[in-house]
Amino acid sequence: MPLIEIHLAAGRTAAQKRAMLAAVTDAVHVSIGAPVPSIRVFINEVNPAEFMAGGETLAERRERESSSPS
Amino acid sequence: MPLIEIHLAAGRTAAQKRAMLAAVTDAVHVSIGAPVPSIRVFINEVNPAEFMAGGETLAERRERESSSPS
Amino acid sequence: MPLIEIHLAAGRTAAQKRAMLAAVTDAVHVSIGAPVPSIRVFINEVNPAEFMAGGETLAERRERESSSPS
Amino acid sequence: MPLIEIHLAAGRTAAQKRAMLAAVTDAVHVSIGAPVPSIRVFINEVNPAEFMAGGETLAERRERESSSPS
Amino acid sequence: MPLIEIHLAAGRTAAQKRAMLAAVTDAVHVSIGAPVPSIRVFINEVNPAEFMAGGETLAERRERESSSPS
Amino acid sequence: MPLIEIHLAAGRTAAQKRAMLAAVTDAVHVSIGAPVPSIRVFINEVNPAEFMAGGETLAERRERESSSPS
Repeated sequence: MPLIEIHLAAGRTAAQKRAMLAAVTDAVHVSIGAPVPSIRVFINEVNPAEFMAGGETLAERRERESSSPS
Repeated sequence: MPLIEIHLAAGRTAAQKRAMLAAVTDAVHVSIGAPVPSIRVFINEVNPAEFMAGGETLAERRERESSSPS
Repeated sequence: MPLIEIHLAAGRTAAQKRAMLAAVTDAVHVSIGAPVPSIRVFINEVNPAEFMAGGETLAERRERESSSPS
Repeated sequence: MPLIEIHLAAGRTAAQKRAMLAAVTDAVHVSIGAPVPSIRVFINEVNPAEFMAGGETLAERRERESSSPS
Repeated sequence: MPLIEIHLAAGRTAAQKRAMLAAVTDAVHVSIGAPVPSIRVFINEVNPAEFMAGGETLAERRERESSSPS
Repeated sequence: MPLIEIHLAAGRTAAQKRAMLAAVTDAVHVSIGAPVPSIRVFINEVNPAEFMAGGETLAERRERESSSPS
């Protein structure tokens, strides 16, 4: 009865998130043989300003990347 | 010092959620003897479109159930 | 489809933990009307040396309390 | 930078768990386009006696199923 | 590759939360020597009406404290 | 009443982990002004074979790094 919690910064579309839930359900089903009805997957969407990786928030990183000259 | 995290799809009333927090506090207190002041319980409310069980999101399931003929 | 995660310092008996799981299932069922088959509750047992509350680990607290004169 | 936490009852082999981690990484990569290096997936293994679903622990369920006549 | 999840009742300013993420990153880096780029920290903001401690929600507690005579 | 959960691959010493708990408590106290007695921090230690980052488990990475010629 696997329970999968996905922490994800906001910014993906509803279709992407729906696809991810289905793909993860399938991945768990195929890899360990858990029956699909027993699998639960859910998303915990995090504000990019409240998710820090390597000392920088995702909001800051997106701002930096979008403003950098190409 | 039990910490209890409840993942729950959105859709319950504030009164239901308040009652659940109190009932769970009491259940933990009575069953293992933890002092009430040491118990913390909180809700992580999940978007029904972002909670999949058995390959179907809760939003899809609610839609299906509300549109099925009785 | 409530999912309940209980973080608990090690030290309770198996019977206490079994009773807590059942009591919490019942509390959620009664308070919000979730069907029992939809409720999942599990324990994440934490090492008392790795659980700090108010600047002191639970292991230190137990040691202090057991050694204090009554 | 998706973080995926998988709560799973003990009992799977190391090979199954390794395969699941890889399959979930791939599922998240393909479905939402997150770069593989940004994806972290980990397992929180739960004692079957401390995981209750529908009012019965997984340990009890396994016992019941293994002892039932076919 | 430490992952740190902070459950916090709503009510802090964005500046406070940004400072907390940076301070926790630094604390983990200095205390165990984890490289800063490997550290991820994020906030799960909880509704004060859905966070109970010692049998009282934080919303109730704030209401009580703000209305008590000094 | 901040609750902080730290997911950490096994391999740190008890002294390092104790130091990390204290440093994080202090970081949260100083950055947002939460009273020390209200802060709880705990570690969820993950098996390096069950923690994958970027498609490789930490156990594999450690093996690879320890066997690479310098």
